[in-house]
Amino acid sequence: MSQATKKTAPTFEKMEKIVSLAKRRGFVFQSSEIYGGLNSCYDYGPMGILLKNNVKQAWWKAVVQERDDICGLDSSILMHPQVWIASGHVDSFTDPLVDCKKCKQRFRADHVEGPACPECGGELTEARQFNLMFKTFMGPVEDSTAVVHLRPETAQGIFVNFKNVQTVSRKKVPFGIAQIGKAFRNEITPGKFTFRTREFEMMEIEYFVHPEQAKERHQMWLEERKNWYIRLGIKPENLRLRQHGRDELAHYADDCYDVEYNFPWGWSELEGIANRTDYDLKAHEKVSGKDLKYFDEEKNEHYVPYVIEPSAGVDRSSLAFLADAFEEDETPTAKGGVEVRTVLRFSNALAPFKAAILPLSKKEPLTATAEKLYQDLRKEFFCDYDDRGSIGKRYRRQDEVGTPYCITVDFETANDNAVTVRDRDSLQQERISIDGLKSKLRDMLSK
Amino acid sequence: MSQATKKTAPTFEKMEKIVSLAKRRGFVFQSSEIYGGLNSCYDYGPMGILLKNNVKQAWWKAVVQERDDICGLDSSILMHPQVWIASGHVDSFTDPLVDCKKCKQRFRADHVEGPACPECGGELTEARQFNLMFKTFMGPVEDSTAVVHLRPETAQGIFVNFKNVQTVSRKKVPFGIAQIGKAFRNEITPGKFTFRTREFEMMEIEYFVHPEQAKERHQMWLEERKNWYIRLGIKPENLRLRQHGRDELAHYADDCYDVEYNFPWGWSELEGIANRTDYDLKAHEKVSGKDLKYFDEEKNEHYVPYVIEPSAGVDRSSLAFLADAFEEDETPTAKGGVEVRTVLRFSNALAPFKAAILPLSKKEPLTATAEKLYQDLRKEFFCDYDDRGSIGKRYRRQDEVGTPYCITVDFETANDNAVTVRDRDSLQQERISIDGLKSKLRDMLSK
Repeated sequence: MSQATKKTAPTFEKMEKIVSLAKRRGFVFQSSEIYGGLNSCYDYGPMGILLKNNVKQAWWKAVVQERDDICGLDSSILMHPQVWIASGHVDSFTDPLVDCKKCKQRFRADHVEGPACPECGGELTEARQFNLMFKTFMGPVEDSTAVVHLRPETAQGIFVNFKNVQTVSRKKVPFGIAQIGKAFRNEITPGKFTFRTREFEMMEIEYFVHPEQAKERHQMWLEERKNWYIRLGIKPENLRLRQHGRDELAHYADDCYDVEYNFPWGWSELEGIANRTDYDLKAHEKVSGKDLKYFDEEKNEHYVPYVIEPSAGVDRSSLAFLADAFEEDETPTAKGGVEVRTVLRFSNALAPFKAAILPLSKKEPLTATAEKLYQDLRKEFFCDYDDRGSIGKRYRRQDEVGTPYCITVDFETANDNAVTVRDRDSLQQERISIDGLKSKLRDMLSK
Repeated sequence: MSQATKKTAPTFEKMEKIVSLAKRRGFVFQSSEIYGGLNSCYDYGPMGILLKNNVKQAWWKAVVQERDDICGLDSSILMHPQVWIASGHVDSFTDPLVDCKKCKQRFRADHVEGPACPECGGELTEARQFNLMFKTFMGPVEDSTAVVHLRPETAQGIFVNFKNVQTVSRKKVPFGIAQIGKAFRNEITPGKFTFRTREFEMMEIEYFVHPEQAKERHQMWLEERKNWYIRLGIKPENLRLRQHGRDELAHYADDCYDVEYNFPWGWSELEGIANRTDYDLKAHEKVSGKDLKYFDEEKNEHYVPYVIEPSAGVDRSSLAFLADAFEEDETPTAKGGVEVRTVLRFSNALAPFKAAILPLSKKEPLTATAEKLYQDLRKEFFCDYDDRGSIGKRYRRQDEVGTPYCITVDFETANDNAVTVRDRDSLQQERISIDGLKSKLRDMLSK
């Protein structure tokens, strides 16, 4: 958290408010909280899982459903040990660590200044390479032959299935394979809430192209992916592309850009978009002995495709959508004054609840009408129902979780068969007939 | 696979056909296949991930979206070590193993007859308890203080969040928490394709009730869950509820039923529906020292709720839906004969592709019309586009992956602005105007 503390107070305060809201309204809880928590692991509460599901679905729709050049895949977390030897992760996916000879604590060598322990001043050992993959044992015997790793990226599951997927899908290069799934990295210094965690979820595309098309397709994906965040509500001024310096590039990458978001603590990576060249497929060809070349029938050409990889974090993009949606504004109160309200201005696609049904009283016939409406609407959208407290308090509760539309069933409803629909952002209220409400909502939400 | 080989040939043959289709059409591949596979781990291909996503979405819609008494949650796979001590898994989640003193192989004691090794005839050791949880190390030091486990069930993530979720959701007992996620069990004898694997995905509900209501709610959930499978297309005669004998019950359960499916190899569990009593919440109260009682404001009563747990396997239910959908029938050929076709009779909700667009020729204006239709429809549904081979072959390909509707764009389309929609099961063809096609398909698919 060292970067955050360097920031000005209002910025730091904003992050604290977001974390507090996330806990209070059920977006994010610390994992195993009743046991004091597990460092850097988090659980998504009732609101958080709806937000995260919406993020994943929006990605899946944009990159698989609405394109004809990308197939989906779901490979397992545990893979054959040879995969990580071929990919270079066993040798190269490491951080340099130093031990304090006195207090026995460990630190990342590149985070320590000078030869002495930052905790007790003791002497430090030489740096040793520490592999960031979690290891476990498959089967009943805990020896080196049983070691398997939790995948540190979903990408390799795609590379080893390249031939299978290309064959069954009959896709022609250029085409891609997309996958959403958990990955694990034994980070020495996780931190910043859900931004950097040891267990996390990724949304990865491996897009296979002819080597000569790699640079052009790389540029195409930079635009495509940046625009995806903007379409889903991120303010353009909070998003940027940053090219990696030569010294930053991963062992497999020829070129890489990060899509960065301006978090309260500063610009940080949401997604890396790398040109992985033919590094991975060739590495797997070599170690497995299998032919992973693509055959272009028209040109009668066999070749190993290059790969453009847009690799996004589900957790950090969900956090970015949450942070970008977070605002405090002033709204008029019933008594003619103003009050500060907290509002999450989620895009309609990402809002956990699409609508809330609020009967103005718990008396009949309001309750029966509201209940019926709720049961009908929730067949199509996630909806909330709230009949507790003043209508002003109920609006505040829905604003805090970003519900775009509040639907009030009032004493007029029995007469005009209509309800009042309030817009979260404009605060405009519109009287809408119950009969046409569902299709009207469907239209409003598709924008 | 010992059970399967005991079956009659046609039954065994059916499973072989399903496995073959699953591989050939991209439902399921063996994990890390180019390295010879990883025992009992599988990858879902382009069709498999669509099927599995549909199964998960149908469950989530039925138990979270369409109910007002259940919230969602997504807890992490890695949890605090105390969780598994409190839950009883460290002590009780074990299988008895014996070692052969001669060839050093290990076997499950309850699978070995007699005192001698089934492989080499050597002498076996006494049985020792082997814990089925995968263990790993968090942080840079591999010692006992760093051991964490991969969760063997998602349930405990729900129990430790009970208080948090109840507070933020303001739900009153009876209410439930639902979660979908990966779990891991280091099974000694996995097998039967994707039915029993070491890495698998669960869909679990923990439904919290007053102790006096537990039996009644347990019965309610038995009906509810059994009907869910039938609504999604499983033939009722292939589904049954089986009550556990006292000797079968898990250490936490007072009573349990399995929803069983009649797989080609025999009746096997899709879902366990247990009355876990207050075992888990009380265990976590004791070990964590936190109060996990629920307070009923109306009755002014503090109590630890009982828990009814419908716990389903995503992989095995997906396999059951696949097996139940699999049929071979005879259809007329263009030449007036009959041919055997393989068809997956998925319910509309589960079919990977909802429709396929098949231009009768690659010439214009057919291609442009078909492309436009494809781009429009796939904004709402997963669709396929196929212009390769005879129309008969294309129908066969769609039948094999269970696409309910094939839409043919033909030479008349330019004149009547209509297409022919063929029903997978009835083989009936209907001429439908392109203008009304999307909403008509929406209606047909909602059935």
